[in-house]
Amino acid sequence: MTDPNLTEAPPIAEGQPEPSEALEQLYADFARNSTSPLWTQTNDLMPLAPKPAAVPFVWKWSELVDIAERAGDLVPVGRGGERRAIGLTNPGLAPTAYATPTLWCAIQWLGPHETAPEHRHAQNAFRFVVEGEGVWTVVNGDPVAMRRGDLLMTPGWNFHGHHNDTDQPMAWIDGLDVPFAHDMDLGFFEFGSERVTDEATPEISRSERMWAHPGLTPLVSQQEQVSTPIAAYRWEYTDRALAEQLALEDEGHPATVEPGHAAIKYTNPTNGGDVLPTIRCEFHRLRTGTKTATRQEVGSSIWQVFEGSGRVILNGDATELVRGDIFVVPSWVAWSLEADEQFDLFRFSDAPIVERLHFQRTYFPEAGRFLPGSRG
Amino acid sequence: MTDPNLTEAPPIAEGQPEPSEALEQLYADFARNSTSPLWTQTNDLMPLAPKPAAVPFVWKWSELVDIAERAGDLVPVGRGGERRAIGLTNPGLAPTAYATPTLWCAIQWLGPHETAPEHRHAQNAFRFVVEGEGVWTVVNGDPVAMRRGDLLMTPGWNFHGHHNDTDQPMAWIDGLDVPFAHDMDLGFFEFGSERVTDEATPEISRSERMWAHPGLTPLVSQQEQVSTPIAAYRWEYTDRALAEQLALEDEGHPATVEPGHAAIKYTNPTNGGDVLPTIRCEFHRLRTGTKTATRQEVGSSIWQVFEGSGRVILNGDATELVRGDIFVVPSWVAWSLEADEQFDLFRFSDAPIVERLHFQRTYFPEAGRFLPGSRG
Amino acid sequence: MTDPNLTEAPPIAEGQPEPSEALEQLYADFARNSTSPLWTQTNDLMPLAPKPAAVPFVWKWSELVDIAERAGDLVPVGRGGERRAIGLTNPGLAPTAYATPTLWCAIQWLGPHETAPEHRHAQNAFRFVVEGEGVWTVVNGDPVAMRRGDLLMTPGWNFHGHHNDTDQPMAWIDGLDVPFAHDMDLGFFEFGSERVTDEATPEISRSERMWAHPGLTPLVSQQEQVSTPIAAYRWEYTDRALAEQLALEDEGHPATVEPGHAAIKYTNPTNGGDVLPTIRCEFHRLRTGTKTATRQEVGSSIWQVFEGSGRVILNGDATELVRGDIFVVPSWVAWSLEADEQFDLFRFSDAPIVERLHFQRTYFPEAGRFLPGSRG
Amino acid sequence: MTDPNLTEAPPIAEGQPEPSEALEQLYADFARNSTSPLWTQTNDLMPLAPKPAAVPFVWKWSELVDIAERAGDLVPVGRGGERRAIGLTNPGLAPTAYATPTLWCAIQWLGPHETAPEHRHAQNAFRFVVEGEGVWTVVNGDPVAMRRGDLLMTPGWNFHGHHNDTDQPMAWIDGLDVPFAHDMDLGFFEFGSERVTDEATPEISRSERMWAHPGLTPLVSQQEQVSTPIAAYRWEYTDRALAEQLALEDEGHPATVEPGHAAIKYTNPTNGGDVLPTIRCEFHRLRTGTKTATRQEVGSSIWQVFEGSGRVILNGDATELVRGDIFVVPSWVAWSLEADEQFDLFRFSDAPIVERLHFQRTYFPEAGRFLPGSRG
Repeated sequence: MTDPNLTEAPPIAEGQPEPSEALEQLYADFARNSTSPLWTQTNDLMPLAPKPAAVPFVWKWSELVDIAERAGDLVPVGRGGERRAIGLTNPGLAPTAYATPTLWCAIQWLGPHETAPEHRHAQNAFRFVVEGEGVWTVVNGDPVAMRRGDLLMTPGWNFHGHHNDTDQPMAWIDGLDVPFAHDMDLGFFEFGSERVTDEATPEISRSERMWAHPGLTPLVSQQEQVSTPIAAYRWEYTDRALAEQLALEDEGHPATVEPGHAAIKYTNPTNGGDVLPTIRCEFHRLRTGTKTATRQEVGSSIWQVFEGSGRVILNGDATELVRGDIFVVPSWVAWSLEADEQFDLFRFSDAPIVERLHFQRTYFPEAGRFLPGSRG
Repeated sequence: MTDPNLTEAPPIAEGQPEPSEALEQLYADFARNSTSPLWTQTNDLMPLAPKPAAVPFVWKWSELVDIAERAGDLVPVGRGGERRAIGLTNPGLAPTAYATPTLWCAIQWLGPHETAPEHRHAQNAFRFVVEGEGVWTVVNGDPVAMRRGDLLMTPGWNFHGHHNDTDQPMAWIDGLDVPFAHDMDLGFFEFGSERVTDEATPEISRSERMWAHPGLTPLVSQQEQVSTPIAAYRWEYTDRALAEQLALEDEGHPATVEPGHAAIKYTNPTNGGDVLPTIRCEFHRLRTGTKTATRQEVGSSIWQVFEGSGRVILNGDATELVRGDIFVVPSWVAWSLEADEQFDLFRFSDAPIVERLHFQRTYFPEAGRFLPGSRG
Repeated sequence: MTDPNLTEAPPIAEGQPEPSEALEQLYADFARNSTSPLWTQTNDLMPLAPKPAAVPFVWKWSELVDIAERAGDLVPVGRGGERRAIGLTNPGLAPTAYATPTLWCAIQWLGPHETAPEHRHAQNAFRFVVEGEGVWTVVNGDPVAMRRGDLLMTPGWNFHGHHNDTDQPMAWIDGLDVPFAHDMDLGFFEFGSERVTDEATPEISRSERMWAHPGLTPLVSQQEQVSTPIAAYRWEYTDRALAEQLALEDEGHPATVEPGHAAIKYTNPTNGGDVLPTIRCEFHRLRTGTKTATRQEVGSSIWQVFEGSGRVILNGDATELVRGDIFVVPSWVAWSLEADEQFDLFRFSDAPIVERLHFQRTYFPEAGRFLPGSRG
Repeated sequence: MTDPNLTEAPPIAEGQPEPSEALEQLYADFARNSTSPLWTQTNDLMPLAPKPAAVPFVWKWSELVDIAERAGDLVPVGRGGERRAIGLTNPGLAPTAYATPTLWCAIQWLGPHETAPEHRHAQNAFRFVVEGEGVWTVVNGDPVAMRRGDLLMTPGWNFHGHHNDTDQPMAWIDGLDVPFAHDMDLGFFEFGSERVTDEATPEISRSERMWAHPGLTPLVSQQEQVSTPIAAYRWEYTDRALAEQLALEDEGHPATVEPGHAAIKYTNPTNGGDVLPTIRCEFHRLRTGTKTATRQEVGSSIWQVFEGSGRVILNGDATELVRGDIFVVPSWVAWSLEADEQFDLFRFSDAPIVERLHFQRTYFPEAGRFLPGSRG
């Protein structure tokens, strides 16, 4: 194909008609008839490559925590507002709190002994915990402990609430497909209990006891499920899986995405696919000094630094990152990462939307090649 | 679940904090940090049921043809503008020519012996011909005749152009997933030949000769394909399939969607699924006097009357329809049809997006029940 | 991999123990305990490549018709025996009427105005008609006309009977997975009506009226089905599809399996896959003078000449073939075809069993290469 | 459907022709033409329900170990015989060492510091360890420790050998699809190294380090795989999963197959399906005193007692069982289990063959009902 980053304007001007009174009248009639001609919109509507309204952007965790803590003091949590969640607003998509055209990302804050009431929605959701503990998310009556490094799932149409069982506040990030569901008119919402329906505080959830065994599934529940039945992916397993990939690499075996770059995908054990129909979740670990290849991908993703430091280069601009920092990579934006020390990052993206609808392409601009399987 | 049409406001007010100077400062800091609190947006972002910005709307074919004909006189077709296509602009989504949040629909006009140059794009496209003939769409070098009642496919990333081989103009509708690809940043575009690459005018295309045999596929090409390899679904087959369903119903056999309502889905013969990854195409035939059940569905669709007359009732408002008239049904809008004489309608929708991402629900408000398999 | 036709004995002898009294006692105890050591069986049980008990074999249609006709005179058809079907017995699998380890093939004969009573079985079945007409197979109450060149389906657990509506006898072949179902203990059988349940004699069946439209499926029936819902694949469509492939080849377009060799697969329109879960059906047409490449495939198949003449070469031995002749190709037997005139052949095989269980390999001995995707 | 256990003879006699000289001549000509009439075979070939040649049978572990140990003294292991494996021979299928028509099961014995050389075959294999340890199976160069309770996988066409690193012998069971592959002519075999290619003795294999993390898969390897990439399913996980099911049952949550009966399926994490294309592996745990419902299933299975005691009732006959005892359940044989103390059993079956080819039925004779989804 042509250079995917071709920026020169296509020769749209050639296609424009000569001005005239009749043309003016025609254009007025287009509007009057609720129509609009393609030839005035082509460049914008159908660009040579994605030109996202969303921009690459970085939020500093320290600032997010500061405003969340102040919200904790000033804003009650309860029925109506539902959650003390502060959405990351991509400057290209403001004022609505869209991080990307598909993904919502918010920092949620729950004070000591507070409860966020139960509700459910068609939108798919998860939580990721970069620090702290002490909150339980109750999913369809199953209390799920939230601890640093854990990924907690609340797939669409499952009732869920949160309660803080400690004397300390806790913050975490929520990820949802709210922008996608909103713009495509897919969402439903239902209020549930004003309290969580089970205030028990077990170390692990019932869903984990049923499902979080490597390669083993309960015989009683063998139907494929749309979303993962595992309510919590615990940090100890993620950490171990990444450590093993790097150790295998050290021993000379293929295990990593590229040298020094380990990564896992969180999966639905009933089909081996993504945890949610619309959201992919991954975790990446870079060795000290690793620099990834630069990639351009169709679809958007959001990353949060879990540990370590380094930088992300987005369309050529580097930003330094430390624990908790969050950045967004809009569609087709060139990104790469560099690790100053061991660098752990959580990622979520709309890849299932892109792939199930067959729009996926990945391009390595430095190598000038597409990933095999990319259409194009 | 709760009444899917519940319109009373959820008690969001209860969730709002007391005004104060500190709160004012916090809200300012939200904005300064590119964030926005959920509790001020819940109703709008996550309604109880879809509240589309798109509105139910009807375009009259006679008016569309009038402005298209005038555009034929005033606007050249060629490189840059690419197509003399006039997009239907949903008043709720204006000024961009979106018919729904996912679907583009345009009337295209090609004058005698004109050529619309070749290009390709990741966006998926089709044409449907409500009247006329004489144009060939050339898809990857394969000339495809366009005639009344035919559905012509140009799946994503196939080069295609059109040329009119006659002394008469021709008009038809184009359907694409342009709004979806644009808003989700999925699109790529590439210019091709300024002329069509094969000016032959065969009755049927090579793709039909390979693929359009009932239940038979070429042994040489047994891989599943993302989109249908059939470039044209001819009216004679559609008409016959619908007539047979009604005849079988007359003979006492189950064949129709509901009494007096025959319907077919156009399918990809390599997997039995939808013709395009993002767009479903159907054709419906109602006997004289038939009134369909009222349905609410997640996802949007666009209908064009092919023949006959009757009316559509959209959220309770009836509009009379004749040949060529086009109407749009946004997500969750209640719709039903009534036939004054045999009533033939072509339909396309974003159902593959909705279903592959598992948001589908169908509700029958008169019966107060959901379709089995609907989540909810 | 090693030469797939390696015939030298593997060094099994090296693995054998020294004879001794203790060994003799051990071998006796093996038998007494219902056990048997692998080291005495390896060569036979796990050969280097398939060594079928079934042999390549050809049945002459003229002889089959002769004995079927005499059976028509001597053997009643009715409840108990159920069908006047004479099974082709592979000499390597005699005395049971297995054509291959998976496939049953029989010539069935039905005299003027005779009826073969209804029954159903888990085993999957089809009929192929090489000559004659006048019989209707009634499948779950739907009468299906049988005519020269037609393929008629009776998937597992559908009631079916046959009745001859004419003053002439008719013969055809039945294909089933009876050996497979029998040896794997999968079969169920149930008697139905002693007569066919509908004696109507329509030109086409209701199933065709619903389903045999190219690329169109009824909206009322969108669930994937295990077997094809099309009860009859008519000769006119098969003939046309093959003729088009050869015409396209003449015009310089890729359409055939190899030069001069057109072929179609009969498919299930609900998923694009095989017509039956265990049996693949194909039709092949060779131009005059065509010689196919030699192939070795895992799994067995049965061919019947429909029209024309030529020969099959099976493991190097050629046999002349004329209309109606049937030959069997056991697993991994090298086969090729040569056409003296336009040569039309129907084929069925156990390929769905082989492929769904991932044992498929295809080898081209002349080229010394495997088909891509073959494991090995 | 009719009673699935109907045993009265179907009225085949009615279908038989009158004896005559002409008939005698016809029958002779059938044989001469390598054909055989259906009406003399119907009852046998197509019974009302499966009538397996294989019989229900129990092998005592103590006797198997005894003969295996003596074979260890008398029979060398090495190239040619390949394995010191003693196959369980179903008396109904003797003299070939088939446990069922599809499944091979053997006790394998490897003496101190012995090596079973490497080879590979299209047949799929696993090992299950009921007692002992000290052997490593090397799968494509990856050493896999074998310990009590572990399930070890060697899917088709992977090189594998075994070596005993200790001064003690070790025994385990091998499960393969050898009968199926042999009878259907699907098998290929290739000799590899005379020694294992890696004599390292790690606690866990590289495959486990990559793949045996609950719900996590390596990003570098996201293609669906035909067989599981996990080489060992460790007892600690199986034990924990079963214990949790029973604990959840105690707490009042649905978790077990039926009261007191926990069970897991070993799965392929790349698709959530069976570990091998032809073989399903499960593990069952019954509480003391539990009696399962009686089931009849299409397809055959083999069970080994891992721990505890109780009995199996096969077609009404009870056999007492202790650690290591193995029994076979042919197709459609009624089985149930009773536990005298906590009763742990490993099971493998040909369910993937049955289900992928859509022959599955399960019947509960005590309740007189089929499992939903059973055809029939």
